[in-house]
Amino acid sequence: MQTFDTICSISTAPGIGAIAIIRVSGSEAFRVSESLFNESAQFGETAPNVAKYAEIFQKEWLIDQVVFTKFKAPHSYDGEDMVEISCHGSRFIQQKILELLLNSGCRLANPGEFTMRAFLNGKMDLPQAEAIADLIDSQSESSHKLAIHQLKGAFSQKMNDLRQQFIELSALLELELDFSEEDVEFADRVQFVKLLADLKNEILGLIESFKLGNVLKNGIPVAIIGKPNVGKSTLLNAMLQEDRAIVSHIPGTTRDTIEDVFTIEGISFRFIDTAGIRSSDDEIEQFGIQRTFRAIEKADIILYLIDINDTSISEIEEEMLFIQQNVDIDHKKFIFVANKIDQLRQTPKQFLKWEDRNVVYISAKRQVNIDEIGELLVKFVQGRNISDNLLLTNARHYDLMSKIREDIEHIEQGLQEKVPTDLIAIDVRDILEKFGLLTGTITDDDILNTIFGKFCIGK
Amino acid sequence: MQTFDTICSISTAPGIGAIAIIRVSGSEAFRVSESLFNESAQFGETAPNVAKYAEIFQKEWLIDQVVFTKFKAPHSYDGEDMVEISCHGSRFIQQKILELLLNSGCRLANPGEFTMRAFLNGKMDLPQAEAIADLIDSQSESSHKLAIHQLKGAFSQKMNDLRQQFIELSALLELELDFSEEDVEFADRVQFVKLLADLKNEILGLIESFKLGNVLKNGIPVAIIGKPNVGKSTLLNAMLQEDRAIVSHIPGTTRDTIEDVFTIEGISFRFIDTAGIRSSDDEIEQFGIQRTFRAIEKADIILYLIDINDTSISEIEEEMLFIQQNVDIDHKKFIFVANKIDQLRQTPKQFLKWEDRNVVYISAKRQVNIDEIGELLVKFVQGRNISDNLLLTNARHYDLMSKIREDIEHIEQGLQEKVPTDLIAIDVRDILEKFGLLTGTITDDDILNTIFGKFCIGK
Repeated sequence: MQTFDTICSISTAPGIGAIAIIRVSGSEAFRVSESLFNESAQFGETAPNVAKYAEIFQKEWLIDQVVFTKFKAPHSYDGEDMVEISCHGSRFIQQKILELLLNSGCRLANPGEFTMRAFLNGKMDLPQAEAIADLIDSQSESSHKLAIHQLKGAFSQKMNDLRQQFIELSALLELELDFSEEDVEFADRVQFVKLLADLKNEILGLIESFKLGNVLKNGIPVAIIGKPNVGKSTLLNAMLQEDRAIVSHIPGTTRDTIEDVFTIEGISFRFIDTAGIRSSDDEIEQFGIQRTFRAIEKADIILYLIDINDTSISEIEEEMLFIQQNVDIDHKKFIFVANKIDQLRQTPKQFLKWEDRNVVYISAKRQVNIDEIGELLVKFVQGRNISDNLLLTNARHYDLMSKIREDIEHIEQGLQEKVPTDLIAIDVRDILEKFGLLTGTITDDDILNTIFGKFCIGK
Repeated sequence: MQTFDTICSISTAPGIGAIAIIRVSGSEAFRVSESLFNESAQFGETAPNVAKYAEIFQKEWLIDQVVFTKFKAPHSYDGEDMVEISCHGSRFIQQKILELLLNSGCRLANPGEFTMRAFLNGKMDLPQAEAIADLIDSQSESSHKLAIHQLKGAFSQKMNDLRQQFIELSALLELELDFSEEDVEFADRVQFVKLLADLKNEILGLIESFKLGNVLKNGIPVAIIGKPNVGKSTLLNAMLQEDRAIVSHIPGTTRDTIEDVFTIEGISFRFIDTAGIRSSDDEIEQFGIQRTFRAIEKADIILYLIDINDTSISEIEEEMLFIQQNVDIDHKKFIFVANKIDQLRQTPKQFLKWEDRNVVYISAKRQVNIDEIGELLVKFVQGRNISDNLLLTNARHYDLMSKIREDIEHIEQGLQEKVPTDLIAIDVRDILEKFGLLTGTITDDDILNTIFGKFCIGK
């Protein structure tokens, strides 16, 4: 167990609120906090976990009337002695209390430092600590579920299972090495190869799940493409408005303007800005086309918006061909959105014949049929088999998994080429080390600083 | 004692933070909260004021791991049964828990509703409740001190003292009325007149203190005037930058961009945007001049910015005359700021002779002598005799005080015109009612809704 110095931080969202929470943690947390309070608060005699009224003074000047709660190590969030001070949420008061704490010998906490201490004190393993940041960032049901799943230890459990199997592999190899002087190839190499193949399959599955895990976490990328003036921004606004309306009837909870993310049935979609698509020699328009291609590349779903009153099917087919020549669209979902039906007398015959394509007839301006687009978006995601299976959502995990996969392939190659067993054993140990990095049994300051540096202040 | 229905609200600042606090208050606060938690949290058996770990589920879905604290009426902020839920500060989780509370029979709290309950439950009087909103809004040492002073009851005490004296006046009148059938004017009317004059003086003092109290609370209005291109916005930025630099070395506490407010030595100054001042027939320029006049009218301090390299003293004197013809500048402080000294070879003789005016020589661009302006601003405020005297800071109080003053003047007039004593007694009773409105012993829903409607949500 390490000894930690004393840190403090505002832990509630920045800005003005009814109340704010300031956290103090570390070996001197009690002494430093007590120095702020009036004597009649009886800080020293107050039992842990009990919320108690106190006054904070700077000399004669009453700074605030607060409620504090002591948490005695190891029974606190980070396993250290901790004090939570609940003060009035004035920005001035928050800063002033922080200032007094700093003057009493605290230092400001780094981002995620409380959670890092929780990890170092063994309150949680590394994937669980990482899940805390994801949980706080979660904006939708799906991203929340992924994070809470990981926080509960599902991911860590899986990693430990896999690691255990690699330890067994390692044991098989060690056994072989013990007999190596007799120069007899280990009898059960068949078993080794089979086990390795099974593990590789599991790991490939996890690696493949990253794309879905990542989009569920950050929002499924959707591009709206179409000619200028076809109503792209009107459609975007109409879709966002529908979403905002749901959120905004709970006052005080209106979210920051993340202009282009919206949530349907618990799934986040993230819009990618695009320009026109018409092939052209004009340099500026060329630039727009390149941007559109990039947007299609990044998107999982493309809303192809047309003005039904002045577009022919053959025109669209031609455009699609043009796109196909420039972008790989094999795994992308195109939804054709025929806009401006409010100006339409009757659906053009050619469109009626084109029903095997996904066509939604809407009026972005009059907000007609907008929800049909939402239904199609949700259907697309649900069709992609989200189950309770474990999904890889974290780039660091993905990276390590990919390296483990490379190690496995290296072992497979070695087996084919009949390299000495002790070289294979080295590869297996490398894999075990990577699992250690995944769950945090092996770690160093650089890794920790990278991971926790992405956290918000106060966590 | 009234029975209150059950309300809930996010009480920390809106947005994403490490933690967020959700408050539940009212007769069903315990039942509603308990329905959210897992059984092993043992909500029912948990003692008041003890922070306890719990899990919140929606059916099988773990929404969050939280810490709750029960507060048993009347030992809570608002005097009701209360529960504070400390959850992860994800916007999604905050909304989700609020949603679950609403589904369990809570309603959303109105702005300031917790504090309104605290008032109605006798935890504080009306000026103290009003001070809570001021305290949360406070951005500077001076506005904070005014609010905390009022929260501690200094204002209420003063009002009660004054009210007591009017009750004595009323007693004198009642005595006189008792003897009225004998048609003898009460002997001690001299005492009555003297008491009334003393009270009027005190009330006039309070009314006059409002201007200072109000600017200390909201920032002292400062106008920067001067010709186009003289460097007005460069100066503003230089001054704001100096202030921001102080604030921003505490990460996580950077305030929202209140573009044009800054604080020196605990005093807030608020900049008023202006345009040019040269007299002109040009219609657009005329518009700018009118705006400048309005800015000078609103300001307490005017920074008159000139380019020292191309301005003559006589030019400034002429401009000042022009301003004086259009705006009453009797109680306004002019500080002349001679800019662009970096381009200056030597100070023009005429300026050296002009030293009886307040002149600061600066370079806004190179940030030279900017702090001298700050020093002059602070000196101006300190010269205005801020002591620990009670200052009126609240428009509602000012309004009622002004009406009381009118009532007093009405009584004085009545005394001169020898109107019957019972008519004067009515005026005194009117005054007593106004004191009741001030401290909240007399109140109605409209008044309360107006007062607490200005609070932030969750307080």
